[in-house]
Amino acid sequence: MRLYGYFRSSAAFRVRIGLNLKGLAYEPVFIHLGKGEHRQPAYGTLNPQGLVPALEDGGKLLTQSLAILEYLEETHPLPALLPNEPIARARARSLALLVACEIHPLNNLRTLTHLRKALGQSEEQVNAWYRHWIADGMAKLEAAMAQTAGTGKYSQGDAPGIADCCLVPQVFNAQRYRCDLAPYPTVMRVFDACMQLDAFDRAQPGKQPDAE
Amino acid sequence: MRLYGYFRSSAAFRVRIGLNLKGLAYEPVFIHLGKGEHRQPAYGTLNPQGLVPALEDGGKLLTQSLAILEYLEETHPLPALLPNEPIARARARSLALLVACEIHPLNNLRTLTHLRKALGQSEEQVNAWYRHWIADGMAKLEAAMAQTAGTGKYSQGDAPGIADCCLVPQVFNAQRYRCDLAPYPTVMRVFDACMQLDAFDRAQPGKQPDAE
Repeated sequence: MRLYGYFRSSAAFRVRIGLNLKGLAYEPVFIHLGKGEHRQPAYGTLNPQGLVPALEDGGKLLTQSLAILEYLEETHPLPALLPNEPIARARARSLALLVACEIHPLNNLRTLTHLRKALGQSEEQVNAWYRHWIADGMAKLEAAMAQTAGTGKYSQGDAPGIADCCLVPQVFNAQRYRCDLAPYPTVMRVFDACMQLDAFDRAQPGKQPDAE
Repeated sequence: MRLYGYFRSSAAFRVRIGLNLKGLAYEPVFIHLGKGEHRQPAYGTLNPQGLVPALEDGGKLLTQSLAILEYLEETHPLPALLPNEPIARARARSLALLVACEIHPLNNLRTLTHLRKALGQSEEQVNAWYRHWIADGMAKLEAAMAQTAGTGKYSQGDAPGIADCCLVPQVFNAQRYRCDLAPYPTVMRVFDACMQLDAFDRAQPGKQPDAE
């Protein structure tokens, strides 16, 4: 398998964790988002969505991090990234989607660049935007994890899974922008538990070969 | 089943389509987003994420539209919203996530309200933001659908499914903001095919009891 990614991409980080949790080896291919390599024709031909990550498996290209994680789950079921029971599976997916749909899209590189260039926002204003959506989204995540049954050692039960694959990269991003994470003790307890595991530790941006 | 939703919520629209495609009856509960009813304590106790839609089934509450659709697929497999083969399933999910993660979050009510209130953007500027992200996201969706194998009568193959559940509400939103959709002929061909089906037609915002 070949993973097209970028050390700082939160979505690529999710897939690195999933591959590591399942013990799957992959060849990394580095697409430098800062240099706009994802918008070059060579990559656009391969992946018309023009985003990272993308995973090549058996000559087929898979896109969108959560679709890739579901694919890995279906093709390499063990160790599982999702629990067995439908309600628990739905809860794990809901926590993953809360990060992927409600927090990350508002704070990714493309969005911040648009705020700077098209809206003329200063760095201070861009940082305020970033922190606003972290506070908004992390409060929802903390409430969901603290107030609904299912949280265990990890986001869903006592095995690391799809929700943790999303939670950990989002916390890394928040820390990078120096957001106050004290109001989210359940999120941070799970983050700390995940970071004890080699699969998460090895996947972190600073440990990738393309890290700057 | 009881569906907490709002006629204009794109994410609730996705779930209405999915329930209709599977022939599942539900009792609608209306949460008026414009009046902030999703932020009231009564709803927050039920759904700590404070978002719509939410689906109550057998006394359990499910949240996040795509997690709800996956749950319906697992608990009521036929008619299927996903194909059988893992690569095709991944492609269908990727197209759904392209809408749910790359387009919709930038243009939902919460984001537009923040642009108005915190950033002091005028209605004209908010509309420009909206159309920018529609153009950016729809170009990606058109490219993915036109340039990768799998598109049939619908987004993935010849049966309506999870990607169509996301595509149709997003096109409705774009039309409401008078975005030019001519550059996306594949998207619009699939949209038109979907709208021939009763399951999509009945789910549209203007046909809901809480429509204004």
